[in-house]
Amino acid sequence: MAKYFAHPTAIVESDKIGDDTKIWAYTHILKGVVIGANCNIGDHCFMENGVKVGNQVTIKNGNMLFEGIELEDGVFVGPHVFFTNDLFPRSPRLPEASKRYIDHSWFKPTLIKHGASLGAASVILAGSVIGEYATIGAGAVVTKDIPSYSLVVGNPSRQIGWVCQCGLRLEDLGKTFQCKSCGKGYVLDNKTLKLI
Amino acid sequence: MAKYFAHPTAIVESDKIGDDTKIWAYTHILKGVVIGANCNIGDHCFMENGVKVGNQVTIKNGNMLFEGIELEDGVFVGPHVFFTNDLFPRSPRLPEASKRYIDHSWFKPTLIKHGASLGAASVILAGSVIGEYATIGAGAVVTKDIPSYSLVVGNPSRQIGWVCQCGLRLEDLGKTFQCKSCGKGYVLDNKTLKLI
Amino acid sequence: MAKYFAHPTAIVESDKIGDDTKIWAYTHILKGVVIGANCNIGDHCFMENGVKVGNQVTIKNGNMLFEGIELEDGVFVGPHVFFTNDLFPRSPRLPEASKRYIDHSWFKPTLIKHGASLGAASVILAGSVIGEYATIGAGAVVTKDIPSYSLVVGNPSRQIGWVCQCGLRLEDLGKTFQCKSCGKGYVLDNKTLKLI
Repeated sequence: MAKYFAHPTAIVESDKIGDDTKIWAYTHILKGVVIGANCNIGDHCFMENGVKVGNQVTIKNGNMLFEGIELEDGVFVGPHVFFTNDLFPRSPRLPEASKRYIDHSWFKPTLIKHGASLGAASVILAGSVIGEYATIGAGAVVTKDIPSYSLVVGNPSRQIGWVCQCGLRLEDLGKTFQCKSCGKGYVLDNKTLKLI
Repeated sequence: MAKYFAHPTAIVESDKIGDDTKIWAYTHILKGVVIGANCNIGDHCFMENGVKVGNQVTIKNGNMLFEGIELEDGVFVGPHVFFTNDLFPRSPRLPEASKRYIDHSWFKPTLIKHGASLGAASVILAGSVIGEYATIGAGAVVTKDIPSYSLVVGNPSRQIGWVCQCGLRLEDLGKTFQCKSCGKGYVLDNKTLKLI
Repeated sequence: MAKYFAHPTAIVESDKIGDDTKIWAYTHILKGVVIGANCNIGDHCFMENGVKVGNQVTIKNGNMLFEGIELEDGVFVGPHVFFTNDLFPRSPRLPEASKRYIDHSWFKPTLIKHGASLGAASVILAGSVIGEYATIGAGAVVTKDIPSYSLVVGNPSRQIGWVCQCGLRLEDLGKTFQCKSCGKGYVLDNKTLKLI
């Protein structure tokens, strides 16, 4: 039997919700959604069939996750992050566009990898892969894949630095990068940041 | 008798909803709203008195439509598009500003024309007219009128190309523009794109 | 006894709501929230413990106010303004980040001062102070403190002018600034705009 919590005003149609997960007010989870254990999902969220959420994920208020959005373990989704799954949308009810919606060729999935953070009101274009522990700044518009540990901001987003697994910005020591808070060190290996 | 569907948690106060339209969870439609037939309106939407929606319109989740917003037939409104109707807002309850709200001179309507698409989290400033079949990119901030068939992105938005009636980007063949998918051809006539 | 109005679908857990305040559909106010008199709070809002709202405040639909957000008297919050209280967020459930969330050192409060206006879909980064009567344009991303009476737009936000207490843009008369609508005059004194 399910050992998760759902607020009385939430609608949870899925039976694949992990233990100790909390689902708050006015949130609607459709039948085909899979959510892991020990997650927290804020008020006014929506998850469509085909969404996958790992364990230990925090989803703040007002997030609408559509088919094809996958969040790996430990991801943070700030308030009102905007996901998409169609790069050139039209109303499927518009006769001039309806042929494009007969099959699923319009569809592009999005993957948010382990430990990444999506800042408030950031926009993630369909088809993007956000690397492990990357941080998307508040209000950034992501139009391409984002490397692990990178910190990006702006519209369109551009990289302005690197962040630690703990979330804080890394200090550039010349040959290595270091977190002043937790002490972890990193090195660039062929443009990829790696833990030392 | 109305032949539309409303989710049990939706509040529909208008009696002017067209046949076969669907209204989903936690959505609130005020009394003075007019909605056409065969529309789909997602969860967590709000429509204020004075809103007009045509036929075959798709409105994704989290859209708040205020007085003066009009959507023609076949429009696509992505998740969380942000509409406004006042370019210099203040709290009408603030004594220093209350005189401006005695009449309706603060008010500017917005028109989204036939078949246009508004990308996720785009912002449409009050008073804008979005031309037929135009596409507003995700996260774009629209501060002026947008020509028919144009594709705009960024903050503030700028044009980066043209799109077909079906929604896909047009290829520039020099003297004409063509859709590789549906084959339609277009030509520029005095800065206005027209179907050949 | 409370003399405020709450829509039947709203959840109001706080008993510190001022007279004549209105709280609309699907809005959730937690127990530790303090709201003044004569406010209007739209549909689909959320207020977390520790939020303070003054008198005569207008909060449009879809606003999520988290711990540490304070709105002084007469503030206008447009539809879907995005607040934050953590500059480098991670899921507190992620083991690599959980130490950062043992205490409250991650927390940064935000203050919106008397009579200021936050445009639709603007983003206010944690730790910002928005000066009296300042106006944040729709879709602007605020990354620092904003001076009183200033008008800012863009991502990141930059100042493009000054606004009157009534909300309209001020005309630059060379040595002074004037509001064509209400007639108020202002002068710059050491980079600070002041009412004459």
